[in-house]
Amino acid sequence: MDDGEFLDKLRAALGEGGVTADPADLEPWLTDWRGRVTGNALALVSPRNAGEVQAVVRLAAAAGIPIVPQGGNTGMVAGGVPRPGDRAIVLSLRKMNAIRGIDAGDNSLVAEAGVILSEVHRAAEEVGRRFPLSLAAKGSATIGGLVSTNAGGTQVLRFGPMRSLILGIEAVLPDGSLFEGLSSLRKDNRGYDLRQLLAGAEGTLGIVTAASLKLVPAAPHRIVAWLGLGSAYDALSGLRALEGAVGDAVESFELVPANALALVLKHIPDTRAPLRSDHDWHVLVEMRTSGDVAMLRTIAETALATLLEDGLIADAAIAESEAQAEAFWKLRETISEAERIDGTGAKHDVSVPVSAMPGFIESTAPQVEAEFPGCRVIAFGHLGDGNVHFNVQPPKDAAPGWVAETGVLVSRFVHDRVREVGGSLSAEHGIGQLKLEEFARLAEPARLAAMRSIKHALDPKGIMNPGKLVPLANPGENS
Amino acid sequence: MDDGEFLDKLRAALGEGGVTADPADLEPWLTDWRGRVTGNALALVSPRNAGEVQAVVRLAAAAGIPIVPQGGNTGMVAGGVPRPGDRAIVLSLRKMNAIRGIDAGDNSLVAEAGVILSEVHRAAEEVGRRFPLSLAAKGSATIGGLVSTNAGGTQVLRFGPMRSLILGIEAVLPDGSLFEGLSSLRKDNRGYDLRQLLAGAEGTLGIVTAASLKLVPAAPHRIVAWLGLGSAYDALSGLRALEGAVGDAVESFELVPANALALVLKHIPDTRAPLRSDHDWHVLVEMRTSGDVAMLRTIAETALATLLEDGLIADAAIAESEAQAEAFWKLRETISEAERIDGTGAKHDVSVPVSAMPGFIESTAPQVEAEFPGCRVIAFGHLGDGNVHFNVQPPKDAAPGWVAETGVLVSRFVHDRVREVGGSLSAEHGIGQLKLEEFARLAEPARLAAMRSIKHALDPKGIMNPGKLVPLANPGENS
Repeated sequence: MDDGEFLDKLRAALGEGGVTADPADLEPWLTDWRGRVTGNALALVSPRNAGEVQAVVRLAAAAGIPIVPQGGNTGMVAGGVPRPGDRAIVLSLRKMNAIRGIDAGDNSLVAEAGVILSEVHRAAEEVGRRFPLSLAAKGSATIGGLVSTNAGGTQVLRFGPMRSLILGIEAVLPDGSLFEGLSSLRKDNRGYDLRQLLAGAEGTLGIVTAASLKLVPAAPHRIVAWLGLGSAYDALSGLRALEGAVGDAVESFELVPANALALVLKHIPDTRAPLRSDHDWHVLVEMRTSGDVAMLRTIAETALATLLEDGLIADAAIAESEAQAEAFWKLRETISEAERIDGTGAKHDVSVPVSAMPGFIESTAPQVEAEFPGCRVIAFGHLGDGNVHFNVQPPKDAAPGWVAETGVLVSRFVHDRVREVGGSLSAEHGIGQLKLEEFARLAEPARLAAMRSIKHALDPKGIMNPGKLVPLANPGENS
Repeated sequence: MDDGEFLDKLRAALGEGGVTADPADLEPWLTDWRGRVTGNALALVSPRNAGEVQAVVRLAAAAGIPIVPQGGNTGMVAGGVPRPGDRAIVLSLRKMNAIRGIDAGDNSLVAEAGVILSEVHRAAEEVGRRFPLSLAAKGSATIGGLVSTNAGGTQVLRFGPMRSLILGIEAVLPDGSLFEGLSSLRKDNRGYDLRQLLAGAEGTLGIVTAASLKLVPAAPHRIVAWLGLGSAYDALSGLRALEGAVGDAVESFELVPANALALVLKHIPDTRAPLRSDHDWHVLVEMRTSGDVAMLRTIAETALATLLEDGLIADAAIAESEAQAEAFWKLRETISEAERIDGTGAKHDVSVPVSAMPGFIESTAPQVEAEFPGCRVIAFGHLGDGNVHFNVQPPKDAAPGWVAETGVLVSRFVHDRVREVGGSLSAEHGIGQLKLEEFARLAEPARLAAMRSIKHALDPKGIMNPGKLVPLANPGENS
């Protein structure tokens, strides 16, 4: 089948409005949002329902043409865009943007893959519930992408990642069949958990078309505090002490080093430091309850006072208004943007056991800076999850090609240190295209062999998002 | 290879003490604890470490002899015993009973497959933590079995099933390789989640040899209450109201109908009704906090008083001592035993969406009793999870073969009703041997096809616990 014939069949299945093949119209869909990868595709297809997705998958399978599913295109590892040289189609889920149902009594909601995260937040709030997963890209990221990448964010500490919030999944499998696993059952032991296999599979085993999601009781009032402290060790001790006092109410515990705060204050308008004093480390903490917020505030204030007395923290400010809480969060959520404005770097999304994280940061940062003179580490993020974004800025006088050359060596160095302490080179961003080589280099053979077997079993023709997530046995095939 | 030769090789690998082939010694391992199935096996093998498990798997793969992994043999669906006529070996994990490590700062613990659940509870308590999964068989059930069946129990409402508490898994795969996924990482997006695939796989994809488990802060004080009420609808409304008042502290919310309580009071020594009044329905509720238990008690008492005022409950008793709390729990945990003493029946472990559960119970029980005159439904259990044990007692004058004959028809009738409301025929017990036919009858083709593909990909020789969980394409092959 030649390309024209294939596109005609797609148009017959989806209508003219469902297929875009003009290169100028296609262009915005081919580059990941970080601008690291620009791929090639024959067309963008935009099905309106699961039946149309099935039709596309069957046509693509018959023609042997790969499919790259795409949601909000906010991924960090270029998992949602084609590779350079691909003869593929990009399948956008954005037209599938209905919230199919919401059941407050059942604490569940069914959203199609193209629904934007902030829409799910809004829908849950309307019925006195909330969907407890949030991240900086919430205004663009879609449910299908969040499921397929097992997204994390700032509330994992209490509620776990996307995987923990999925009750059911509807997906089109590589043979065009529809997996109808969209129930909201809390307990279901009927065989292998295909939902959990599809979650985090980055579209390599099928196309998630809808998900049934867990809601929790609303907790409209929050207590947001900004802490100044001397070390990452103290931050972790402080977290454990705070949890002992307020229990599950601690939803976010985000570590911010002095250099990250300085970058934000330099590059992001309308920001100012929450504390008058200077500190090597900061923590943004958010606590919520669906019960008595005044009581929580009393307990939290007492707990923070004890942390001050014990010397675990040096200073603290509790937001006195929702506007101030937002201002504190802005400092955390614009770190990536400030880094981007400041210049490029080698970025790492690593996890280690929670208790090992302070030691990892405090020992690895100087090692990196010694091994690569002039570089500077900015390590920030989800301390309570054992996950930090361990980013390395190049020397001031670095050549333009630094990331592609030295940056690659820096990443290997960082990932080797992560492996030494039993950590992961991808805590929440996934593997996509950008981490495929490193994953293949470091993964245990048994893990890779099992993944390849599963991939081949469910997608024998290899049409589902090839070149992402699953390192092939022959590394040359990946590129 | 003949059987003698195979056994010699096993003895060479494990030592004489690791292989039991004498029929008299073997016998206790061949029958499931409910006494429903007695299978056949060549030998019982008892490896002491993962290396020995690998050796057994390699020998079995070479000889084409199936392996039936067994933990505490407390499963409900005969997943841990061989089938009649099998030429298999039973692989007991009981000698692998070390707690390899416990890290209070990381809130994690690593237990080998043969560690008994109550040992994990004890080890966690010693470091000021707890492992929040419990069930009646806690004194015998092992971690490997709990992982492999994705066990549920009485704390799923707050903490989820076993699947939610697994941080890492070590397993021997069907090719004899060792999957070293035993980290305690909270976030890890390196490819397909093989941990979640092995959890609940009932040993059909490999043998779990150890697991890294999530701990939570200790909560030594609990508030246990027994409620009397008029309907399952009121029970669910009461749960939602209680959650609104006390939040996550509600860990268990167990529904007990009048007929189940009567059976317990009749058959189990040293039991008495907690309330003086009679009620059609009862609820056992347990609340815990790691914080201020006196404050929780005040809030809980106020909430229960409101439920009384609103007419959602008719009577309530709060346990005034740990002994009384134990006595309340005994009434719930001995229901299965009381049923067994009273006589056999058709048992079902079903889930439906939580909000649909009261309607399901109240409509399906009379339907069953009308369709099968003289039968009586006893539906009890985890209302807040949408999971009840929907058991059907035969007529008083039923013939001895009732379960195998009419009971099968009763089960089909119940499961058909479950399917009509989008439920599951196995909420927490798994599929094993006993539910394989019903699963095959009711499952969607896409789900079965995907399961078979995965099974064949990872276990092409079909040596891992055949005839359990995965219905083969040709039903004749299952038996």
